[in-house]
Amino acid sequence: VNIIQSSKYIFAKKFVNPQTNRTIDRSLTCHTNRLCLFCIDHVTNSCHATVPNMLNVHLVPHTHDDVGWLKTVDQYFYGGRNDIQHAGVQYILDSVVGQLLQNPERRFIYVETAFFYRWWKNQPPSMQKAVRQLVDQGRLEFVNGGWCMSDEATTHYSAVIDQMTLGLRFLNDTFGPCGRPRVAWHIDPFGHAREHASMFAQMGYDGFFFGRLDYQDRTNRIRTLEQELLWRASESLEPPYADLFTGILPNGYNPPKGFCWDQSCDDAPIMDDPDLEDYNVDDVAMAYKTKHIIMTMGSDFQYENANLWYKNLDKLIRYVNTRQANGSQINVLYSTPSCYLQELHRANLTWTLKTDDFFPYADDAHNFWTGYFTSRPALKRYERVSNGRLQTCNQLEVLGGPSSRKGPFGAGDSETLREAMAVAQHHDAVSGTEKQHVANDYARRLANGWQHCQVVVSNSLAALSGSSAGRIYCDNLNVSACPLTEASKKVTDIHAHSCTHARPHRWHFVRATFDPATGLLDSLTNLETQQTIRLTQNFYWYNASDGKSSISDQASGAYIFRPNSSSPFIISCTAETESIQTPELQEVRQQFGPWVSQVIRLHSNSKALEMEWTVGPVPIADGLGKEVITRLDSSIASSGVFYTDSNGREVLRRKKDFRPTWDLRQTEPVAGNYYPINSRAYIKDDKDQLTVVTDRSQGGSSIHDGSLEIMLHRRLLHDDWRGVGEPLNEMSGVFPLGLVVRGRLLLSLTPPALAADAHRPLAQENVLQPLLSFTEGGPPPGSLLEFSGLQAALPPAVHLLTLSQWGQDSLLIRLEHQFQTKESKEHSVPFTVNLQKLFSTLKVVGVSELNLSANQWIDEMKRLDWRPKMGM
Amino acid sequence: VNIIQSSKYIFAKKFVNPQTNRTIDRSLTCHTNRLCLFCIDHVTNSCHATVPNMLNVHLVPHTHDDVGWLKTVDQYFYGGRNDIQHAGVQYILDSVVGQLLQNPERRFIYVETAFFYRWWKNQPPSMQKAVRQLVDQGRLEFVNGGWCMSDEATTHYSAVIDQMTLGLRFLNDTFGPCGRPRVAWHIDPFGHAREHASMFAQMGYDGFFFGRLDYQDRTNRIRTLEQELLWRASESLEPPYADLFTGILPNGYNPPKGFCWDQSCDDAPIMDDPDLEDYNVDDVAMAYKTKHIIMTMGSDFQYENANLWYKNLDKLIRYVNTRQANGSQINVLYSTPSCYLQELHRANLTWTLKTDDFFPYADDAHNFWTGYFTSRPALKRYERVSNGRLQTCNQLEVLGGPSSRKGPFGAGDSETLREAMAVAQHHDAVSGTEKQHVANDYARRLANGWQHCQVVVSNSLAALSGSSAGRIYCDNLNVSACPLTEASKKVTDIHAHSCTHARPHRWHFVRATFDPATGLLDSLTNLETQQTIRLTQNFYWYNASDGKSSISDQASGAYIFRPNSSSPFIISCTAETESIQTPELQEVRQQFGPWVSQVIRLHSNSKALEMEWTVGPVPIADGLGKEVITRLDSSIASSGVFYTDSNGREVLRRKKDFRPTWDLRQTEPVAGNYYPINSRAYIKDDKDQLTVVTDRSQGGSSIHDGSLEIMLHRRLLHDDWRGVGEPLNEMSGVFPLGLVVRGRLLLSLTPPALAADAHRPLAQENVLQPLLSFTEGGPPPGSLLEFSGLQAALPPAVHLLTLSQWGQDSLLIRLEHQFQTKESKEHSVPFTVNLQKLFSTLKVVGVSELNLSANQWIDEMKRLDWRPKMGM
Repeated sequence: VNIIQSSKYIFAKKFVNPQTNRTIDRSLTCHTNRLCLFCIDHVTNSCHATVPNMLNVHLVPHTHDDVGWLKTVDQYFYGGRNDIQHAGVQYILDSVVGQLLQNPERRFIYVETAFFYRWWKNQPPSMQKAVRQLVDQGRLEFVNGGWCMSDEATTHYSAVIDQMTLGLRFLNDTFGPCGRPRVAWHIDPFGHAREHASMFAQMGYDGFFFGRLDYQDRTNRIRTLEQELLWRASESLEPPYADLFTGILPNGYNPPKGFCWDQSCDDAPIMDDPDLEDYNVDDVAMAYKTKHIIMTMGSDFQYENANLWYKNLDKLIRYVNTRQANGSQINVLYSTPSCYLQELHRANLTWTLKTDDFFPYADDAHNFWTGYFTSRPALKRYERVSNGRLQTCNQLEVLGGPSSRKGPFGAGDSETLREAMAVAQHHDAVSGTEKQHVANDYARRLANGWQHCQVVVSNSLAALSGSSAGRIYCDNLNVSACPLTEASKKVTDIHAHSCTHARPHRWHFVRATFDPATGLLDSLTNLETQQTIRLTQNFYWYNASDGKSSISDQASGAYIFRPNSSSPFIISCTAETESIQTPELQEVRQQFGPWVSQVIRLHSNSKALEMEWTVGPVPIADGLGKEVITRLDSSIASSGVFYTDSNGREVLRRKKDFRPTWDLRQTEPVAGNYYPINSRAYIKDDKDQLTVVTDRSQGGSSIHDGSLEIMLHRRLLHDDWRGVGEPLNEMSGVFPLGLVVRGRLLLSLTPPALAADAHRPLAQENVLQPLLSFTEGGPPPGSLLEFSGLQAALPPAVHLLTLSQWGQDSLLIRLEHQFQTKESKEHSVPFTVNLQKLFSTLKVVGVSELNLSANQWIDEMKRLDWRPKMGM
Repeated sequence: VNIIQSSKYIFAKKFVNPQTNRTIDRSLTCHTNRLCLFCIDHVTNSCHATVPNMLNVHLVPHTHDDVGWLKTVDQYFYGGRNDIQHAGVQYILDSVVGQLLQNPERRFIYVETAFFYRWWKNQPPSMQKAVRQLVDQGRLEFVNGGWCMSDEATTHYSAVIDQMTLGLRFLNDTFGPCGRPRVAWHIDPFGHAREHASMFAQMGYDGFFFGRLDYQDRTNRIRTLEQELLWRASESLEPPYADLFTGILPNGYNPPKGFCWDQSCDDAPIMDDPDLEDYNVDDVAMAYKTKHIIMTMGSDFQYENANLWYKNLDKLIRYVNTRQANGSQINVLYSTPSCYLQELHRANLTWTLKTDDFFPYADDAHNFWTGYFTSRPALKRYERVSNGRLQTCNQLEVLGGPSSRKGPFGAGDSETLREAMAVAQHHDAVSGTEKQHVANDYARRLANGWQHCQVVVSNSLAALSGSSAGRIYCDNLNVSACPLTEASKKVTDIHAHSCTHARPHRWHFVRATFDPATGLLDSLTNLETQQTIRLTQNFYWYNASDGKSSISDQASGAYIFRPNSSSPFIISCTAETESIQTPELQEVRQQFGPWVSQVIRLHSNSKALEMEWTVGPVPIADGLGKEVITRLDSSIASSGVFYTDSNGREVLRRKKDFRPTWDLRQTEPVAGNYYPINSRAYIKDDKDQLTVVTDRSQGGSSIHDGSLEIMLHRRLLHDDWRGVGEPLNEMSGVFPLGLVVRGRLLLSLTPPALAADAHRPLAQENVLQPLLSFTEGGPPPGSLLEFSGLQAALPPAVHLLTLSQWGQDSLLIRLEHQFQTKESKEHSVPFTVNLQKLFSTLKVVGVSELNLSANQWIDEMKRLDWRPKMGM
């Protein structure tokens, strides 16, 4: 690595690939929806030999360590609050490493870098050396390797990429190529997003394994031997760029019944030559195509006392394989997901192609995991806001130079917020499925991270503007509270936009009409395209099942959405209204009763209709849990079809009571049609497309033609028996009342062909809102009042996804093409960006392209090739 | 060790003390009640330094591993049935040894050799070598070290000595002097017997620690700083021969609240510099005399994942001792009981002397642990019978020579029964406080052990008699069932007596009269001494508390006896009787209703009145748990005083509603006066002593003057919340009914001065009953019909407690003086025995005296000396 030049505001790094000794220095061409990036890798392999003509049972010792759930991430690491759940990750790693060192045959995989990183820091050099050797020899293998195992339904791709990068970078820095995970491993998330598969493909993973899918889907796949498949995860990227080999684990992520030897299990240990006939391994093998099956030997926070597991696994392997001398055709071996994957690859078969996703997830007829799409809406919004703040912090850290980290406002850093955001991506974090005290801890971490970032931002703005005047960040503007602007006479506000938002909108207006009798929205017109639709909107609540029905004892809870009737209750047929008009905006304020209100706004420079809803405290004095939705009912002939995005990126077609890959038996007419909405949903017909852009992840559906409903808030009185052990009943205030939540929906009406041109930038702006800071008094003389980090606006199709400090003299830059293939005549085409002319203060002296997670040189990213079934 | 001579029937070993190089060869003089015995020892010391002027907190990492309780001993070793209780001793030892090897500062103690022995056998030589080093360096210290931690209330000294010898021998053979436990450690038994303390003193222990004592006693001792004391445990042995320094642990055997870091605990781990002020160590220190306190860091089956404990203890020690720089006067160290004891000894203080015992044990006002004195009466009897069988087996193995182990009846051994008996001494075994399936397992082990011994006995009898005719052992004679003697016309029976029982009684006779109106016993006369007392006897039941009283929710259970009234219900005021008389015996058969009957017998050559009672199935259809007693009501003016034995050996004086060492507040008028009766109890006045000899351990008391009651059977419907988790409701038969139990009481009426002359041999004969075997047909021609292993009868005061094979050419012999001091004019005096003239078939070529547990040369037994308080 040769550092060519380094001066103020000019950072870059010229990479020399040490493998090829080739210097990389080039402009990047952004292909449609291709994430453009800037490592090194090599492959290690120390898998145990398999026996060709036998059934090979791959035993994969593993632990599943939630980065927060029933306990906080700290409590899980140290083993605190074991009264809630016995779990201490520090001990797991101590114990497993000790056991691996005792017997070179043994294997272990580790997943969550948030924990591993913390443990590693506390180890003496001798232990670090021993662990490095285990990794080099493939005895300890990292899989997945992100900071956490992210949720797939409620996360935004930007934050997922960041958290994966954070984890994988630690592994790369610490262990080099042997520490690079080869397999993505999402054994617990409750449904699987196509965009996640796409990202994993672009991060260079050779395959993906998960545990949970719809029970009907599973039954069907067992029958058709399709529990292994090839997932074509993008409509935009040319195959096999986003193709991902995907395997469904036979037993969730648990060991087979009777074979759990963890301290948390009660299964009989192997006392002597045991009667292993009890478990018929052939039954499992019949549901898979090859002579290999995988057995996940572990579960939640297991291996804290790894000796129990390994001592019995050693015996199991010895006893079972001894039987081969008597004609047994079963071969049992210690293995890892990548070793198993390698055997599947060697089988050289063809695999069914899948192009949709794995939502929604139901574990039985009345048990749809679609409630968590909305659970804890305030936390979901806070996570989304924090993502924007992190990007701002990252960018200003780069633009402000070294004094950003240590300047007139003291020492700041972006790591704290980066780690807090990474932790928040966990599948029991932003998902809203953690205990209340844990949700509080995630929020506290984000707030603390932001405090560290505020210093960076203040320092950076001081360096860029030349003024060190004190800056105030009004963090409670979501409730219109800011002591400074309320009290001070003269305030200057500084909008620190993300780099890509330096383009003012020039588009004109939308028109909305209201029914004077009801005070409700009546119609929506796009003045530019001269199209009008009938559109009413109101608020409703589903009565949450309390688990006392004769059909099923499933109650709605943090995970599960189960209305006890398909018809929601209306909150009020009419709204009291009040109108306000200024040259900048028009707004209609609607009151639907004591706990629901809304402001509908039109801004002069936006063609979107803004609906700012406020819901809560949801009343529960009637003893009924409530799942509150807003529903848009339009004249659009949607024919049961609607569209939802995947992690804020590509959009998938949904059809009511239908699944693309099997003949659905619908058992929950509402909950079974809910899908995650991360950033947008729409309905359309030949003429009109109504797109709703959301400010956070929510659940939604189209139950009736022309209608689109979005779940806004949930207040529940029962636990849903999926482990969290609490009803989702959020409070706020000193004398606690039910939580009040506020949010915005942005509506856009366009012809279908022009819809993406509107909703793509709209959604991106909503994700990355400007950060406001205020200084008292006028701008100091001589200070710079405007600054853009970009030399010029980027093409609308190109989004600067990442601009952040990587090393002392290097940056990580991600440019993405944000349009999906074929969705925009104007923008769904390739664009070329000249990196040299991109930034106003940075000179690029060298560029090297990496994979999406920045842990591998793109040149060296050689993924296993998998063949789809003919004709697919 | 030089073996001088070895030939058939002549076994002995000439020991040369390798330390002194002195050959030991001498006759033994048996002092009154001195157990005369036949090893090598030396002392190791690797205790951490303490700080003289600070409070030194000795942290003792330990595990308490029940040799059976809620699970069987096998299940506990392997970790089977973890659904009942998570516990696997194999993993504990794996884990602890691994952790000790990681840090030389750490210490651990291990107690139960039954488990350690088993683990050791499965270790590779490399691990055995590492463990030997840990032991040599004092990092792993054995304490107690018997096969189990025996019960103190329901065990017989003979079986306790055997089990201790078995465990300590393994430690001595495996680890030599460094493996010799220096401290006796009875942290869990439910009350403490003086005879146990006496045995521990004679086994060379330097001190004794326990955890449970009466709550009033504890409170008093905390106040008077007498939680450490000097126990003078024998009235017969000259001090300090049976003096035992005794320490009461501050917290049972648990860690202080908040400091339990086992996987089974929920306490917060040390996350950082913790607020250790939460626990005020000074409060504990105030209740002890020295600048040293002991903290038991562990509990039941803890340290299965020892890393959790040690990692936090390491931190605790570091953090607390770091504070010394800021003036803290507390010094925390890894320690062991012997290190702690050494510091107490160095303090050179005087200690209060105690001469009584620690029965009964109450943990609160209505919670007396006096039920288990009788719980599972059938198991208690079976254990006692098995003890006799083991002694017979041991003796015949010696007398029959090498062919006893492998002879015409195949291969046999005494080890299986020895181990089964050792396991049965555990404080949740013969105590009757285990789960039913575990009680079944103990019985199965004894039965299996006896099967192995039967082969030894048959082989030995074949060798001694010259006849290999098939032998039948009628193991069900307790229910008068023996297919052979019932079906066969000609049967020869062989009585294999224990060696000491070769003396026929020549004394004449007792007279009992019955009230013809009631059929009950009326009076008892000793014809020899011409003394008569009024004596009635009947059966009663206490109504067991069901835990629903307003005073206390304590129910009677396996541990706890709590009658809900002090007045028992009579079963029947009258008995239907039938009389039978032969030249050999007279008997009166009494029927008291459907579930209680009795046979009262006089044998021609015995001066004891035998009462064979049959109780059961105890009816529970009325929903009432029943605790069945028999009560003898006599004209003896006992004045609230009665006497019970201690582990079948010395006798202690009891006084109703009184404790010798503190001012008792009696809260349970019946249960609070119950004491264990292992072999005998008596009441007396100036003229008459009525002694009852029992055939098993039972609970009993004298609630009224002149009366003596013995609890025979218990059938209960509630658990008593001491962990066993089952009501004590024993069943038998294929269609299960309540268990029927049969047993014998032997009554002797004498003047007090002559009482011991009668009850000492009577009790010993009852413990060691002859074994009967049968052969079909007459004796084969030329076969020997009579044989005695002794050349001549021993003096009545001398009992051959042990005669068993030790090594290939050596025996272990224990001779004891079985009379207590001053109890017999004729027998409570020293006797001399000539070992050379003792055995009919053995020539003694060398003798070396050992301590009671045979793991130390008596010459080298140098115990720590402790000074009693002046004037005591």
